[in-house]
Amino acid sequence: MSGSLVIAGLGPGAEGLVTPDVTAALAHATDVVGYIPYVARVAERPGLTLHASDNRVEIDRARHALEMAADGRRVVVVSSGDPGVFAMAAAVFEAVEAGPPAWRDLDIRVAPGITAMLAAAARVGAPLGHDFCAINLSDNLKPWPLIEKRLLLAVEADFAMAFYNPRSRSRPEGFARALGLLQGACGDARPVIFARAVSTPEEAIRVVPLPQATPEMADMRTMVIVGSSATRIIARDGAPLLYTPRSVPA
Amino acid sequence: MSGSLVIAGLGPGAEGLVTPDVTAALAHATDVVGYIPYVARVAERPGLTLHASDNRVEIDRARHALEMAADGRRVVVVSSGDPGVFAMAAAVFEAVEAGPPAWRDLDIRVAPGITAMLAAAARVGAPLGHDFCAINLSDNLKPWPLIEKRLLLAVEADFAMAFYNPRSRSRPEGFARALGLLQGACGDARPVIFARAVSTPEEAIRVVPLPQATPEMADMRTMVIVGSSATRIIARDGAPLLYTPRSVPA
Repeated sequence: MSGSLVIAGLGPGAEGLVTPDVTAALAHATDVVGYIPYVARVAERPGLTLHASDNRVEIDRARHALEMAADGRRVVVVSSGDPGVFAMAAAVFEAVEAGPPAWRDLDIRVAPGITAMLAAAARVGAPLGHDFCAINLSDNLKPWPLIEKRLLLAVEADFAMAFYNPRSRSRPEGFARALGLLQGACGDARPVIFARAVSTPEEAIRVVPLPQATPEMADMRTMVIVGSSATRIIARDGAPLLYTPRSVPA
Repeated sequence: MSGSLVIAGLGPGAEGLVTPDVTAALAHATDVVGYIPYVARVAERPGLTLHASDNRVEIDRARHALEMAADGRRVVVVSSGDPGVFAMAAAVFEAVEAGPPAWRDLDIRVAPGITAMLAAAARVGAPLGHDFCAINLSDNLKPWPLIEKRLLLAVEADFAMAFYNPRSRSRPEGFARALGLLQGACGDARPVIFARAVSTPEEAIRVVPLPQATPEMADMRTMVIVGSSATRIIARDGAPLLYTPRSVPA
């Protein structure tokens, strides 16, 4: 039997945001590998083995998936959102590069998904409708000064900014520093979107002007989007609509 | 009858990349509005009117959709990819802001889709696996010097870069200038991915080192991704795998 490995994105949470391509990959899998809450989204069935593991063991998980694929299993590694954006795809390819040469010849593909920033943006309008950047605010895997440098350059470029992993229990201070930096560098009241658990029953969305944003508005399930200097707010009876215009006047 | 407007992303082309949420919105629509090739992807059926229009009339198209929704129709505006990324959502919200106050009270929502950069990245590995930015290279709606400024800041931030609309018949020169600027500023041989018509029968993907990238490798159906300085290439018998590692050493 010829094995395979699909690194699949489950989207932000709602079943309506899982692509048919990912659903089909799961239907053909013999083994599903991933972080506990993501594997919990996959229905059990005869012939399918679920391998759920804890956070922060991405490379071990990737190796395990590759070993099973090399043994002829049809393996799906699940990520939330899109696997290529701060998720499992890069970890799998790191393991491939460092692993036995035979792993390079495996049938491996990435099945894209709706990443959190796109789902969060959609809920409030189109804040990423013009040039933007995506930054992982965790300093588990990179030095904090690099994050600060990127934030300041992103402000200078006037990108809208999408922040993944803004805050966790083990890193409570970083996001406070990032917010302080942005409040100083931007010097305006552009909107900040805190989008928690988008498309799930726990969804909670809050929009505040940058000077009023505080660290505890985010937790590890929150996606943060900071508008550019041009981002607009359309007031109305319900939640406001936010968008960043396509045009920048000459 | 109470009208509604859904701004929906059809993804890059393959049916397997259209979310069930978007499929359901189309199934309930009375009217579908969009650029000719995107509307052509929607199946005709009794009770559904297709309104296809040419490129560069985004605001007229948005107003037409809003008028129909205000008249009680269930309207879906279709974009390829994700509607919030250089697509129709920002145009609709621009029209809402400039339009009659009653438009603000319409039932409007954005249904996200797989945007081109995520589909293109998935095809080659995980080049967007670390911090990155997305830039629209068209200067139809912003001054060229702003594009150059953003390119140089993105290089300084060491973002991977995803370029939408790199080149068209009416703007043949811009992409040549952008490539020249990047070749000078990066000074290395980081990979450049030219991903044309991803997930369609015309898909063509080419990876070249930055110094060998030439303008005619892109056309208006091409997504261009430039790696960061850290992007890795895993050589193998088939097409190489590319990824940008999650970690940056201190």
